[in-house]
Formats: sequence, structure tokens, C-alpha cells
Amino acid sequence: MTREELIQQIKRKKSFLCIGLDPDLAKIPAHLLKEKDPIFAFNKAIVDTTHDLAVAYKPNTAFYECHGSKGWETLQKTIEYLPKDIFCIADAKRGDIGNTSTYYAKTFFESMNCDAVTVAPYMGEDSVKPFLAFENKWVILLALTSNKGAYDFQLNESKEGKTLYQHVIETSQNWGTEADLMYVVGATKTEQLAHVRSLAPNHFFLVPGVGAQGGTLQEVVQYGWGKDCGLLINSSRGILYASSGFDFAETARIEAQLLQSQMEEILSLKKMI
Amino acid sequence: MTREELIQQIKRKKSFLCIGLDPDLAKIPAHLLKEKDPIFAFNKAIVDTTHDLAVAYKPNTAFYECHGSKGWETLQKTIEYLPKDIFCIADAKRGDIGNTSTYYAKTFFESMNCDAVTVAPYMGEDSVKPFLAFENKWVILLALTSNKGAYDFQLNESKEGKTLYQHVIETSQNWGTEADLMYVVGATKTEQLAHVRSLAPNHFFLVPGVGAQGGTLQEVVQYGWGKDCGLLINSSRGILYASSGFDFAETARIEAQLLQSQMEEILSLKKMI
Repeated sequence: MTREELIQQIKRKKSFLCIGLDPDLAKIPAHLLKEKDPIFAFNKAIVDTTHDLAVAYKPNTAFYECHGSKGWETLQKTIEYLPKDIFCIADAKRGDIGNTSTYYAKTFFESMNCDAVTVAPYMGEDSVKPFLAFENKWVILLALTSNKGAYDFQLNESKEGKTLYQHVIETSQNWGTEADLMYVVGATKTEQLAHVRSLAPNHFFLVPGVGAQGGTLQEVVQYGWGKDCGLLINSSRGILYASSGFDFAETARIEAQLLQSQMEEILSLKKMI
Repeated sequence: MTREELIQQIKRKKSFLCIGLDPDLAKIPAHLLKEKDPIFAFNKAIVDTTHDLAVAYKPNTAFYECHGSKGWETLQKTIEYLPKDIFCIADAKRGDIGNTSTYYAKTFFESMNCDAVTVAPYMGEDSVKPFLAFENKWVILLALTSNKGAYDFQLNESKEGKTLYQHVIETSQNWGTEADLMYVVGATKTEQLAHVRSLAPNHFFLVPGVGAQGGTLQEVVQYGWGKDCGLLINSSRGILYASSGFDFAETARIEAQLLQSQMEEILSLKKMI
């Protein structure tokens, strides 16, 4: 998907919501466990009731891999089931030496036809660039993550006075452009969000951490708003597990709608729609 | 596997060789392509001819994932096929927020019964610690990798005058011990190897980059030797693709034996055997 198509979708759906498809057998409604593929049944129901409210879905590979080859099949089926105009992010946090990263890129971009993959920056340029070689596909590079461990290394200051996340954002802009490179920036790090935005004014950010992890939509927009919106705000648990009953999919829709209606208001205020 | 068992194996086999099982359909012998599962047939033949010479095997997940659920099955079959006394490393370079890393850990330690997983440090403590919660299982943390991109961030100097890899090694020693934590240190970075060893004198290092990537066994031993040997030296392409004919497995054995015999000499010189 091109940047232009993503922006058009944001305008059409009046939303910049990404839904994390992180299905956990211990949390999905009990009545689904009798299905042949409970996780696919769960995902399908969530997608059916939310796809007009979200511009992106983000399955995290950990929740599929833990079920072995069957889980990998479920991941593939889920991605195939997504409407074609939806931006699909494989939240895989891969990254390896060049020829190996190419195989990861082929997995998610060719075999699975995802639009984007999250990539870890630790191994540098030749671990990231193979993902950027695919037309209209995106790298979403970890920059400042939403978890507590982000403080261990990402906020380290260099002798030039730059944090590691700054160094990652500045250096990686030599590898990709606003048309194929986004950054992961946690909603829980609002004190740094304005700084991150100043480093990459034109790039989209994938922002996890709203909801269960404690970040708020309003603060993310206040500090993180960018060119053409520039935000994909992810919610996983807050939507997926809003109810564990037979009404889980309808309740997920209510939660998604709550976020979408706030986003519509913001997009209108910002004169995007 | 415990540290003691690993050391016993090194002494018994007179080897500290790890063989990377990175099977590439474009490189494996053509006659195997008619097999039902060519990659498993290839791995099986390599394991059959080398398992007395190697103390560890290291399948890199990228080479299996790119074949979808079938590839994942091949990975599982390969790991199940390894002799029980061999140290099995899933070279997966995973790492995610806490609850998600736990799922990755379950995948490789419970479903697949690997002994170790390579983990990327960028997301910090709560992305690494879930892997350390499994008894007699190991984290092999990326520290100073063998690729060119390692220079992008890993050698960044902090205002305290420490490189990022130093910070990773020092900080992570609060998370794990020499009994459950190793480091990835590239054989191509010999100028830093002695420094890395001084930071972690008692930890094992997994050292890729010997052979195809340009590192030499002698230099790695000269600068990287540690307590109880402290080295697992990996070779992938140099062994796997030594021949593309019907004799590939026997030729792989010859290459592995060449390394093993040099290792035997070193172990003897160092009075380990």
C-alpha cells in the first residue's frame, strides 16, 4: 500500500486506528474453544465487526508461533481474510544479517502479502535495508518502545548528547523515506513524543501503548501529530478482550467505535476531513 | 542443558563447533528437490554426518518461516531429529514487551524444546527476562554482531565513554548469569573481541562469522577465549554448501572435521582435554 492510499483510507474511514490481533487462548471467549481453529474464529469475528473503523490490523507473530505450524497457518489465514484495502502489519520485530533479513522480508511481503513489518534496529543498516527493497512495502522500525525496558538502552545518551532512539531515527532516514519507513513510538513516552516528532516530522508513527499500557489518545495527538496525521494508534487488549462472553465481537466494536469517534473529532479539528 | 553438561560435551567431542542449519532451497543439492521435504532431507543428512563433531546446531528461523506453515513443520522436525545431547539454538533474534516475549519463549523452549534462543536487546530488561524464566534454558543476547551494520549503533559511544555493546553486556549481567546467558559476538570484530571478553570473562560467546564472513578461528581463540573455553564457534555456509553434489553430506563432514581438529588442538593446548 502506498502512503497516499493509506492517507485516503484514514480520510474515508475517519480513523487512524490500528487493531492488534494478539489472540491469547487463555483470554478468548470460552465458547470459541470448541471451534476447529478457535484463534481464526476469534480474529474473523473481530475483523467482521471492526474493519470499517480501523485502517490497519497488526497481528503479533508471537501469538501464532506459539501454536507451531498450525499457528502459522492461522496467521496466514487471518492475513488472507483481511479486506484488501486494510494496511496489514506483521508485528514480528525481526532483523538479521542481510541475506537472512531478505528471507524474513520474503516471508511477510511475498508469502503473506503484508504491507509492513516491524523491524528491530540493533543490527543496523544491512539488517533493515532488505525489507526496504520491496515496492509499496513498509518497514516500521523500533525507535522508542512503550515498555519499561525502553529505558535500559533507547534513552542512553551518546557523547554527542543524542539518545539511542534519536540516533536510530536520524541514521535510518538515510535508508528509507516517508513513503516506506515508519517508526514505533510508545504512547507511554509522552515526554519524549514531541522530540521524536521533531526528528521525523513527515514519517508515520505506529503508536502502541494506548489503553492497557496507560497511554492516552489525547496526549499522543498533542505531542505526536505529524504531516498527513502521521499516526497509527494501536489498541490490542482494550478492544479484543472488552468482553469474554458471546458478545465479544460486538463489544470490541463498541470499544473500537469509541476510539474512532474521538479520532474523527481530531481529524476534523485538524482539518484532515 | 546446563553449563556443566555443555562443557562435558565440549571435552567429550573435543570440539566447540556449532553448525548453523540455514538451508536455502537455491543452494541445496538439486537431487534433494524431489524429496517430499527437501530441507528436512538436507538437514538430516548434515546432522547424520556431523553430530559427533559439533556440540551445537543453530537453525535460523528465517530459512524455515519463508516456507510458511510447512517450513515451520520442517523446523520442528529438524529440532526433534537432533541427538538429545546436542545444544540446540533457535537463532530467532526475538524480543518484545514482557507478555509477548513469554509467548516466544514458550514457542522455542516448550513447544520446540530448544536449549537456547538468540534475543535482540533493543527493548531492554522486560523483553529479555521472560526467556530467562525457564530452567536450564539459555538466552543468547546480541551484543556485537558480525555484520557491517553492527557499526551503525553497537559501537556508539555514550557520554560515559561506553559503547552500546558494552552497555548491553554490563546491564544484562544483572538479568542472567553465566549459567543461562551467553552473548553473540562476531568473529569479524576481532579488534573488539578482547574488550568484549574482559566485560564478560565467564560467559559463553556464540561466535558467528568464521568462514564465509571472513573471521578466523585462530584470532577468535586468541582474543575471545574464556573460562571453560567460553566459545561456541558457528559455521553455516562453509559446511552446508561445501559441495552441491551427491557427496554434500560427506563433504560437509570433511569441513566440520577440519574445524574440529583445529579445535581439538586448541583445547589440548589450553589443557581443557
